[in-house]
Amino acid sequence: MLTVSDALRLVLDHASPLPPRRVPLAEAIGCALAETVLADRDLPPFDKALLDGFAVRTADLSGPVPVALEVIEEITAGRVPTRAIGPGQCSAIMTGAPMPDGADAVVMVEHSRRDGPRVLLCPPRPVLPDAGRLPRGREMRQGDPLLGPGTRLDAVKLGLLASVGWTNPLVSPRPVVTIASTGDELVPPDQVPGPGQIRNSNATVLEGLVRCCSGVPEVAPIAPDRPDPLREVLSRGLANDVLLITGGVSAGTLDLVPGTLAELGMTPVFHKIRLKPGKPLLFGVGPARPDGRPGTLVFGLPGNPVSGVVGFLLFVCPALKVLRGLPGAPPETITARLAQPFSHRGDRPSYVPALLRDPSPDLDGGPVVSPINWAGSADLRSVALADGFASFPAGDFDYEAGTPVPFLLLPRSQ
Amino acid sequence: MLTVSDALRLVLDHASPLPPRRVPLAEAIGCALAETVLADRDLPPFDKALLDGFAVRTADLSGPVPVALEVIEEITAGRVPTRAIGPGQCSAIMTGAPMPDGADAVVMVEHSRRDGPRVLLCPPRPVLPDAGRLPRGREMRQGDPLLGPGTRLDAVKLGLLASVGWTNPLVSPRPVVTIASTGDELVPPDQVPGPGQIRNSNATVLEGLVRCCSGVPEVAPIAPDRPDPLREVLSRGLANDVLLITGGVSAGTLDLVPGTLAELGMTPVFHKIRLKPGKPLLFGVGPARPDGRPGTLVFGLPGNPVSGVVGFLLFVCPALKVLRGLPGAPPETITARLAQPFSHRGDRPSYVPALLRDPSPDLDGGPVVSPINWAGSADLRSVALADGFASFPAGDFDYEAGTPVPFLLLPRSQ
Repeated sequence: MLTVSDALRLVLDHASPLPPRRVPLAEAIGCALAETVLADRDLPPFDKALLDGFAVRTADLSGPVPVALEVIEEITAGRVPTRAIGPGQCSAIMTGAPMPDGADAVVMVEHSRRDGPRVLLCPPRPVLPDAGRLPRGREMRQGDPLLGPGTRLDAVKLGLLASVGWTNPLVSPRPVVTIASTGDELVPPDQVPGPGQIRNSNATVLEGLVRCCSGVPEVAPIAPDRPDPLREVLSRGLANDVLLITGGVSAGTLDLVPGTLAELGMTPVFHKIRLKPGKPLLFGVGPARPDGRPGTLVFGLPGNPVSGVVGFLLFVCPALKVLRGLPGAPPETITARLAQPFSHRGDRPSYVPALLRDPSPDLDGGPVVSPINWAGSADLRSVALADGFASFPAGDFDYEAGTPVPFLLLPRSQ
Repeated sequence: MLTVSDALRLVLDHASPLPPRRVPLAEAIGCALAETVLADRDLPPFDKALLDGFAVRTADLSGPVPVALEVIEEITAGRVPTRAIGPGQCSAIMTGAPMPDGADAVVMVEHSRRDGPRVLLCPPRPVLPDAGRLPRGREMRQGDPLLGPGTRLDAVKLGLLASVGWTNPLVSPRPVVTIASTGDELVPPDQVPGPGQIRNSNATVLEGLVRCCSGVPEVAPIAPDRPDPLREVLSRGLANDVLLITGGVSAGTLDLVPGTLAELGMTPVFHKIRLKPGKPLLFGVGPARPDGRPGTLVFGLPGNPVSGVVGFLLFVCPALKVLRGLPGAPPETITARLAQPFSHRGDRPSYVPALLRDPSPDLDGGPVVSPINWAGSADLRSVALADGFASFPAGDFDYEAGTPVPFLLLPRSQ
């Protein structure tokens, strides 16, 4: 059976960045840039005052203070100075305003006393040329490359794009992810289950996880265990970038999903992973789409909610990153120490839902992990308390308190 | 002048959770619950099969294997068993289906061979009662409290709510944040600046930061430096939960903001902080709002882009958390070691834009920080490269390479 890392390699081998698209700035946050952004002008576009005060010739301030100067103009931000500063003159100036010709520094308003048409300046230290002035082009020159392909756009980078008028950047868009739930036993969460039925919680979990990983979730109606409606739902899902199917991928007689996907042209890549929980995990690639986009990445996740979460974190989340133009590294783990002794038995590597607690001085100061006493992979209640999953290798081992273990964090929405 | 921590305490003293509201599950992700969620029924609602296989009486399997049993029914998920299992009988059963009366375990399909109306079972180990069966109510009992007020809802917790039909949870809603930019020199990012003008990048930065902190940004039109249009913009902002004003809060003659806010009934709390960059930061509380909600939290952030970012991270972000019903702790910093020697001079604690790099084996394995050579607080280009800000105390110090310093991360969108 495939190992987790071999399975992840297969997933990433089949994933590539989505065709880039121009989006408005506000939608680009978190996206990877797919072009080089150039400065459209010098910034600042003029010598700019960095302080509220008086634009002066430093030559006038070489002697003892205070110095009396004639104020020839008031230059506010957004206005253009109309007069050059001559000897014995200055202009009142506001932060952000263009410096007048002749001036080479700004004396801050706190070091001044206005006296009608004159001002008395008493800077406590000598005023050097360029004090309080940002020279034109100091931040960037027209044509400078500012940010390149692959750069992930955060709030400040978006501001930089705004400052050069780059308001429709070309980015790798967010993948659209269909969430298809299958099973006659499922009813939507807002309905009261009948005999033998349960509410569909998996779609809600996956919808949240997709959002946390910057995908755009589209929740499909629940598909019953019958070929025609199932084919209808899966066929629509193959129009989107990713298709997640929950339930219907183990070996039971009504597990129609793999066959239906094959009929719809999906190429299967793998169907089982050496992993607990989450062994029966199907991965395949749908047929190429009409608009030239690559085939849909199809994940058939186990119907047990916990298995589905583990499968999502280990395989779907890295694939979504690649589609978004970001490196598709294995999911990040942190190292935490076991709060109490823990025994693990089993022939597969296991992910055990666990709490992460603040550093304990008894355990070397790092974060501390406590596995949750859960009732197996259907036990959503216990897992809802978890901060993530502690990872244990295959084999029968008894771990002492304080043993460091890798910990896979559940992603948190903002 | 106020210290950063005293200023933060004042901000948090004036912030309280927004009145809770019911929202659909998909909108609740990341929100703090404002009620106790109860189980509406036992879960599972029936003894449930955990495997595809055969529901058996373990008493029938006490002898040597294989054991031949009569298959009296096929129970698929979503159906209700109609026949009880008697001695020598079993029913084929699918994962998730209700167990039939009389059966106390499931033998997995992999350990069976079907033979017409009979099945040969050959489990490799003795089958104990409850094997492959999740008893009714094992996960939860009707009326059990599942999650309480203050719990932050992640994807799995939303799934738990879905499983008990709690589809409109009461949560602390996301704060609505007005972003008001002031200044005659500003034009929107999609316009070409005229002489003396620059594009408004601050609103874009703040919009992104608000999103990263789970607020709902509303960008107001740029307010010129004239009383009437400014009053109009600020007055509208006082209808929302938070009002961020960028520009217009230093001492210049056209800085009409503080006076206008006072006219509109804002109670000023502080106006300056011992901090670099970001000293002139105004904080106040607007008048109580008509619907009984508390007064708007008003932040006048410096117009220099970098100062504005630092002020946002240190004060606005923690305030947004409190409004959202979460603990309003100081912003999280990590500790990183200086990659090279660094000198800091100044009478205020400083936040210096810096890169965070992967652990270096030379520097004890922790993350490594490199301050950026920037042109001061107007230099958005340099800050756009930064991963966050290295923090240095007031005073003149020369730090050696390897010195640990606190590092304030820029928030990343998902």
